[in-house]
Amino acid sequence: MKHYIAILTLAAVLSGCTASNKSSEVNSLTDNIQTLTSPDGRLRMNFGLNKKGIPTYELNYNDCKVVLPSKLGFTFRGRKEENVYSLESGSKRYAKPVDMQTGFSFVSSSTDSFDEVWTTVWGEESRIRNNYNELAVTLRKDKVQMIVRFRLYDDGLGFRYEFPEQPGLVDFVIIDELTEFAMAGDHTAFWIPGDYDTQEYSYNVTRLSEVPATISGMQIGNASQHVIGPSSVQTSLQMKSDDGLYINIHEAAVVNYPTTNLDLDAKTHVLRTHLTPDAEGWAALLQAGSRTPWRTVMVTDDARKVLASRLILNLNDPCALEDVSWIHPTKYMGVWWEMIVGRSTWSYTAEHNVIIVGETDYDNAKPHGAHGANNENVRRYIDFAAANGMDGLLIEGWNIGWENWFGHQKDRVFDFVTPYPDFDLPALNAYAHSKGIRLIMHHETSSSTLNYERSIPEAYALMNKYGYDAVKTGYVGDIIPVGDYHYSQPTINHYNYVIRRAAEHHIMVDGHEAVRPTGLCRTWPNLVGNESAKGGEFCESVEPKHLTILPFTRLQGGPMDYTPGALEMDLRYINPKRSDVLHFTVCKQLGLYLTMPSPLQMACDLPENYERYADAFQFIKDVAVDWEQSKYLYAEPGDYIVVARQPRKSTMELAAKGVAALKDGKKDYVNGASRFCLTDVNGRPDATKDIWFVGGITDEQSRSFDIAFDFLKPGARYEATFYVDAPDADGVNVSKETGSAPCARYNIYKQTVEASTVVNLTMAPSGGFAISLKEI
Amino acid sequence: MKHYIAILTLAAVLSGCTASNKSSEVNSLTDNIQTLTSPDGRLRMNFGLNKKGIPTYELNYNDCKVVLPSKLGFTFRGRKEENVYSLESGSKRYAKPVDMQTGFSFVSSSTDSFDEVWTTVWGEESRIRNNYNELAVTLRKDKVQMIVRFRLYDDGLGFRYEFPEQPGLVDFVIIDELTEFAMAGDHTAFWIPGDYDTQEYSYNVTRLSEVPATISGMQIGNASQHVIGPSSVQTSLQMKSDDGLYINIHEAAVVNYPTTNLDLDAKTHVLRTHLTPDAEGWAALLQAGSRTPWRTVMVTDDARKVLASRLILNLNDPCALEDVSWIHPTKYMGVWWEMIVGRSTWSYTAEHNVIIVGETDYDNAKPHGAHGANNENVRRYIDFAAANGMDGLLIEGWNIGWENWFGHQKDRVFDFVTPYPDFDLPALNAYAHSKGIRLIMHHETSSSTLNYERSIPEAYALMNKYGYDAVKTGYVGDIIPVGDYHYSQPTINHYNYVIRRAAEHHIMVDGHEAVRPTGLCRTWPNLVGNESAKGGEFCESVEPKHLTILPFTRLQGGPMDYTPGALEMDLRYINPKRSDVLHFTVCKQLGLYLTMPSPLQMACDLPENYERYADAFQFIKDVAVDWEQSKYLYAEPGDYIVVARQPRKSTMELAAKGVAALKDGKKDYVNGASRFCLTDVNGRPDATKDIWFVGGITDEQSRSFDIAFDFLKPGARYEATFYVDAPDADGVNVSKETGSAPCARYNIYKQTVEASTVVNLTMAPSGGFAISLKEI
Repeated sequence: MKHYIAILTLAAVLSGCTASNKSSEVNSLTDNIQTLTSPDGRLRMNFGLNKKGIPTYELNYNDCKVVLPSKLGFTFRGRKEENVYSLESGSKRYAKPVDMQTGFSFVSSSTDSFDEVWTTVWGEESRIRNNYNELAVTLRKDKVQMIVRFRLYDDGLGFRYEFPEQPGLVDFVIIDELTEFAMAGDHTAFWIPGDYDTQEYSYNVTRLSEVPATISGMQIGNASQHVIGPSSVQTSLQMKSDDGLYINIHEAAVVNYPTTNLDLDAKTHVLRTHLTPDAEGWAALLQAGSRTPWRTVMVTDDARKVLASRLILNLNDPCALEDVSWIHPTKYMGVWWEMIVGRSTWSYTAEHNVIIVGETDYDNAKPHGAHGANNENVRRYIDFAAANGMDGLLIEGWNIGWENWFGHQKDRVFDFVTPYPDFDLPALNAYAHSKGIRLIMHHETSSSTLNYERSIPEAYALMNKYGYDAVKTGYVGDIIPVGDYHYSQPTINHYNYVIRRAAEHHIMVDGHEAVRPTGLCRTWPNLVGNESAKGGEFCESVEPKHLTILPFTRLQGGPMDYTPGALEMDLRYINPKRSDVLHFTVCKQLGLYLTMPSPLQMACDLPENYERYADAFQFIKDVAVDWEQSKYLYAEPGDYIVVARQPRKSTMELAAKGVAALKDGKKDYVNGASRFCLTDVNGRPDATKDIWFVGGITDEQSRSFDIAFDFLKPGARYEATFYVDAPDADGVNVSKETGSAPCARYNIYKQTVEASTVVNLTMAPSGGFAISLKEI
Repeated sequence: MKHYIAILTLAAVLSGCTASNKSSEVNSLTDNIQTLTSPDGRLRMNFGLNKKGIPTYELNYNDCKVVLPSKLGFTFRGRKEENVYSLESGSKRYAKPVDMQTGFSFVSSSTDSFDEVWTTVWGEESRIRNNYNELAVTLRKDKVQMIVRFRLYDDGLGFRYEFPEQPGLVDFVIIDELTEFAMAGDHTAFWIPGDYDTQEYSYNVTRLSEVPATISGMQIGNASQHVIGPSSVQTSLQMKSDDGLYINIHEAAVVNYPTTNLDLDAKTHVLRTHLTPDAEGWAALLQAGSRTPWRTVMVTDDARKVLASRLILNLNDPCALEDVSWIHPTKYMGVWWEMIVGRSTWSYTAEHNVIIVGETDYDNAKPHGAHGANNENVRRYIDFAAANGMDGLLIEGWNIGWENWFGHQKDRVFDFVTPYPDFDLPALNAYAHSKGIRLIMHHETSSSTLNYERSIPEAYALMNKYGYDAVKTGYVGDIIPVGDYHYSQPTINHYNYVIRRAAEHHIMVDGHEAVRPTGLCRTWPNLVGNESAKGGEFCESVEPKHLTILPFTRLQGGPMDYTPGALEMDLRYINPKRSDVLHFTVCKQLGLYLTMPSPLQMACDLPENYERYADAFQFIKDVAVDWEQSKYLYAEPGDYIVVARQPRKSTMELAAKGVAALKDGKKDYVNGASRFCLTDVNGRPDATKDIWFVGGITDEQSRSFDIAFDFLKPGARYEATFYVDAPDADGVNVSKETGSAPCARYNIYKQTVEASTVVNLTMAPSGGFAISLKEI
């Protein structure tokens, strides 16, 4: 096995740029040029109007051009001519589109600075600094005033458009947003194809100029999909310049507005916003007094700073909830993976090929016998989850309707309140609660957002009645109302409506197939997770590099319910009809609990698999899911991530109470995550001891890293438990042998370490490692 | 003044037809011809397949052909090719449309008969006979089985398509329904233009062949409108043949399906269904196990039988509610007409041109002073309504948002819970209740169905909290979700969702600008009214003939909240800036309470106008709104209607209790309607006495009728109060003088009558009359 020794390519303080980045400017700023610098002075932004009166900005990092002069603006829809109708066409006539890009004049500008530290409800760190310089430029086009507000942080730029209340503007429709990001070079890009409906794509890593030639190969099918064109990619788009700059284009605080794709001109490397339209083909219906989401350009000289950046969260509004005491981190198992792998089913009967909710007679339907969410099976999972320190158990396929769901534009797909005959909801909840486990609700909407909204009153009342406090929602299939898309303004409003309604009911939300998050979890911390990317359910097609890219892209907007923890890579072990494997080593799966931070973290595998890998499973039982602080030790998108994290103190204290209560026979399932790590030799919790976890993953390359434990308390000694790939382990070439298979070769050992300790660890191809550290 | 003596053109028992009706058949039925006759044997229907395997039916009345052989069938959408995407077009590829009209084969047929009498919750009569013969034909096209179910009544035909659960069919999409109604002649038609969004049109009366040449003149503008084409009309379509047959094409029980327009071939007189599409252009997404609404062809030889027909109600499902005790008839006033006429406004301030619900500061906004729904004004209406025997008071413009509502595709238009600063909702409700008046809620959705559905939990909770038990909903403006229409399947589902949710909260619904009703009030009797036609709010443009047509068309599906009772026709009296008048006599306005039956009946005028016309207003105070039985004495669409009605006994008994309770100082606002008529000389109620009301209206022609009181109890004597146009009265040429104006010239007198009495009454041009009869 060939080992690759990682060399840290720290761009450090760049003193100059390559010639290509210094090329002359085409769209030069000519009028009322305003300049803004980041607090540390390294990022500098200029804004002005060009000769045509087009608002234009550019961004530099030290002497290096990051964004060449780039245009801002919109196309508005002309106002409807009220009560004028054309009999010929049968449709209403509208005025021509209104150009809201050229011909702007400068009105005024103002600057501001901001510096605060805010406390998170959960996440990678307990406190986040929000420090920026701000420039707000007021422009006028005809009678319309528009403000462009820029916030420049040490790690990037955010800007948005604002339309203040004013005499000349009431309601208006955006057809196109014309925001450009003119890249200064043919950067290496980590991208997925543009789409109005799905992000469940593998990442491609190419030069920007190579996107058009390779995009069709990336466009795999999906239950709902609307691919955009030959040269469009999605946010967040991570890039790396030849000068070693990491540039990330994303969006923050998408509320009442669609998310955007980025149309790429592969020759000029100019990216332009391409908003998801609604069923009429309009992008956004807005009123004066509103504003767009933030457009962001993160710029760092070190990949680790991308992962440590809080740019997106900082650009979101503060927490909207007065009481957040009911929001808690959760480690959970699920009656789910066995369905994904095809051993059992969501559905209950083969007797009906058509299901009409409320009419189909399930009580007299003959069960087909493969239904996963049956009482006996669920109790088995409850027993195992309780015995192994989980907080929750997700159960999918508990409610009627799974015989006939997505793909048919069926409005009333599910009712979210009627269990299958073999799922005794009250009894199973009572049983779970008696063991300190909370059941996690599952609401597959089948993308019938209308039906889901109509069902929410009864569905959430049921959850409250039986003590569910978290729901996994799903949006498989095309959106109903028909003609709409997953990422359009109306559907974005739906997701946000669900989050708000859930908060009223003290329900945490984990949205699958919903829009990619854009940091809204700061404002609504009950949004504890999203899928919104290619997740573990894709099994063999999850490529080794995939997980080393997601934290740079998808996770910038919020945590992902990736569903780690599959310790048995050979899926025949679960379902003999399968012939595929997962391209991971066991230790890479463990490492994911650190590299894919989420307050909602799954242990996705089956109880029997965990029993077979009990020694490795111990790490999953131990690991925390909510953090006081995080230290990114090594990172490179597409290659590797190594991170150390200290569990959040307040959460650990709550967990300690929970463990003690459980020990005393009292029901308490709040914040039990990492309860195992907390227990001392007597099985009692001890939250006074310092605890850390370290994890790493790599792509298809084997890599070795020196791990310096200098983040530990000076002078303290820690018992470290190492979970490391064996020298002959291999997560790429996963042969179909169990037990002795290369993916399952690992070593677990304990070692005392302190702040001065340095150890060298090697990760196998598509391998990883995990370390738990407990102060002695 | 020229008097026109009405001659009753009773076609009676037709023994033959004109030659044109006996023309040879083009689409003759060739295969497996099935015949069905009505219980009385006069209607006969044949069904069969033609040479191309097209399902075909024809309908005869005695020897007279009513519907020539007419095709049935559909165009289905081909199944989506799953996961096949075209990068070029950026959209999903679908297979070609599937012909579901030709190539059918006969599978089987069955017949049945049904005869029952059911009891209504409210309406024109307390008991309705439902008596029909049924033929169900099962057909097969390729693998798909389809049933066509025909029900033949004495007064018409109903048929629908059914798609039973079957192996070859799961979910399917209807692009077109191809149902034909081939008329046997160039009938006189009473029609409004086809539209996907509005029915607020004046009726045209032309030959079928004249529709294309005259339709554009009928297409006035509306806040939401989608006119269809040069030869499309709406249901219900009333026709009259040269042979004196009254033929009415309508639809019944429209659930989970769009309503239809009728495309007319003006040369062949063939009408074809034209369903309202959704935002994707599809007509209906259905599942096997579902069925279409009924298509109906009413055939009578007497116009009075059209008005007395219960065909549409009979084809709807029985009442879905266990408890209907909370549903009650209501006579109400409104803080509304003064807004329609422009004396006051729905809005509160001119300070904001943009309103963002939840953000706009109303408390510090300067009122513009014209807001109608202010505490003082509302109390004035409450006082007047209570003193004059009303049950309810509608108040529009009570909630924030009216400064900026329809026409802008604004999603969050209203929140339905926040009153304007000058509307003290709790205090006004308490004040109203103390006087036996219930406030009627107003929910203008501005056609943002999404926002309304999201708001329902809080909105209906507020209603329940403060004792509102009825809501007037409004759907002004284009539908949001954008791209959709008022009459599409998704929007139909919305209206029905609202009715169901309202029923859960014991709320009665009166939907304005919603889809035309199709008899659903049988199933959901809390749907107490709809506008869904050109109503009183259109003021001067309501033509004299309009109200003589609506009962033949719009009212076939359910009652209309027309808002009668405007006694001051000169609108300058309300708002000096107006220069228009209403083309009614005072007595025609009174007659409407009989000719426009509705359990929710408004007295729309202002208190000060009723004080000025106190003698005529007495009839509005007296008249009942819910009936034991109804006798149509004279009727001809477009010309006149005269009807006698006996108040419902059970309602009168309840009303008597209410009157007594009020008299004793107890609050009781249930079923107070007609409480004035009930009171004896001591002001006490007496429900033991028989009561009748008679009313009549005419078009622009003056007409005289002999009124025979043979419907009264034999031997009993009645005090009759007559409200009759004066000889020089005129509702067409309404000069702008008050008091002595021709529209306001009437005589009121009492006379003792009995069953043998016959009186001759004359109605002025656009005039009418009213009589209240009370057993002595």
